[in-house]
Amino acid sequence: MAFSSIKRYISSNFPINEYKEKNYLEFNSNEFILIDEGILFKYQLYSNGEYNITNIYDNGSLIYLNSDNFGLFTKSDCSFYKVSERELNSIKDESIQKNIYEFLKTELIKKNMFIRDFSRFGKSERVLSTLIRLCNSFGVIKNNCIMIDIKLSHTELSQITYMARENVSRTMAKLKKEGIISYERGKIIVYDFEFLMKELQCEDCSIINCSMK
Amino acid sequence: MAFSSIKRYISSNFPINEYKEKNYLEFNSNEFILIDEGILFKYQLYSNGEYNITNIYDNGSLIYLNSDNFGLFTKSDCSFYKVSERELNSIKDESIQKNIYEFLKTELIKKNMFIRDFSRFGKSERVLSTLIRLCNSFGVIKNNCIMIDIKLSHTELSQITYMARENVSRTMAKLKKEGIISYERGKIIVYDFEFLMKELQCEDCSIINCSMK
Repeated sequence: MAFSSIKRYISSNFPINEYKEKNYLEFNSNEFILIDEGILFKYQLYSNGEYNITNIYDNGSLIYLNSDNFGLFTKSDCSFYKVSERELNSIKDESIQKNIYEFLKTELIKKNMFIRDFSRFGKSERVLSTLIRLCNSFGVIKNNCIMIDIKLSHTELSQITYMARENVSRTMAKLKKEGIISYERGKIIVYDFEFLMKELQCEDCSIINCSMK
Repeated sequence: MAFSSIKRYISSNFPINEYKEKNYLEFNSNEFILIDEGILFKYQLYSNGEYNITNIYDNGSLIYLNSDNFGLFTKSDCSFYKVSERELNSIKDESIQKNIYEFLKTELIKKNMFIRDFSRFGKSERVLSTLIRLCNSFGVIKNNCIMIDIKLSHTELSQITYMARENVSRTMAKLKKEGIISYERGKIIVYDFEFLMKELQCEDCSIINCSMK
């Protein structure tokens, strides 16, 4: 498990918070969150009230929240541990401090990967890039295909891809028609992961870095 | 000066490297660079040989290089200090370790700001966003205007904005016609910084976070 020292420390030393699904949670200071159970969206909020979903997390995910413009949305009922960055930084334990450092470095690499796909290519490639990230983070092999084991509406996909919902729907319909994807009980099945990678000129990137988490 | 402990340490303990202008420098391990003098572009390299300019640095800039896909280009003759991340991490000095941590956090915030502008808005807004960043990083007040005190070709602007050069030139020509910008001896003069901020729905962001550096 990645960042196991810090995760063990947080889950042993801080109380658990429980929230019902569909709650927006704002934070007043920089915080680290460790999910015990449930699915959380991290969102980036803008001054006009609009927002985008930047990450999707589930059980065991470690989340860093910059209080300035990030918050969480409980996609499902959730329980998680919460600790302020200040408190975490004050712990005199080398392996924990190393974990925090490596965690921030990984976050930085993930942002660079995201910029690679979202700035370099066109709009429809954003959908492909998001499908790859979803497969890497929530993919389950099923009958030789990859099922993305989380239900996401086209509205949610549009908030992830910074696109209009109509454009997301159009791209998804095209992928379905071409036999790249289909739906099964509200979940996306990816038949041709290689196609997605080829379209995005994917390199041999680590799954940890090319992630929705 | 930001990150002064680490900068003092690097400049006192490591030899200086000198390079002539217009050199591409690749790195085989993760490195920190401190510029003594000159202008360096950080570029993100792709497997097909293409690249984008992600940052522009000058005297006193601290740079973190992830060896996987980043390199430097000497825009001018340059001298800089170089130290491996591994070596820097091994230093037993709390203020230096704090500096490194704060540095990585700032890098992460800068990436989020970049994603905000480059993913949320259209292509021409990328040019506006880049002009704001250039003003924040290299702006000099001159006759009530802001002169961006670094010469950049439209090709270089296209490498910064992930756009075709023709589209950059078209957007710059439009801004010039509208009296927002002009050129003086190859440098960009911004007459109406407020216009750029308004177009991008800028919030009260710190100049450090909205930066080309």
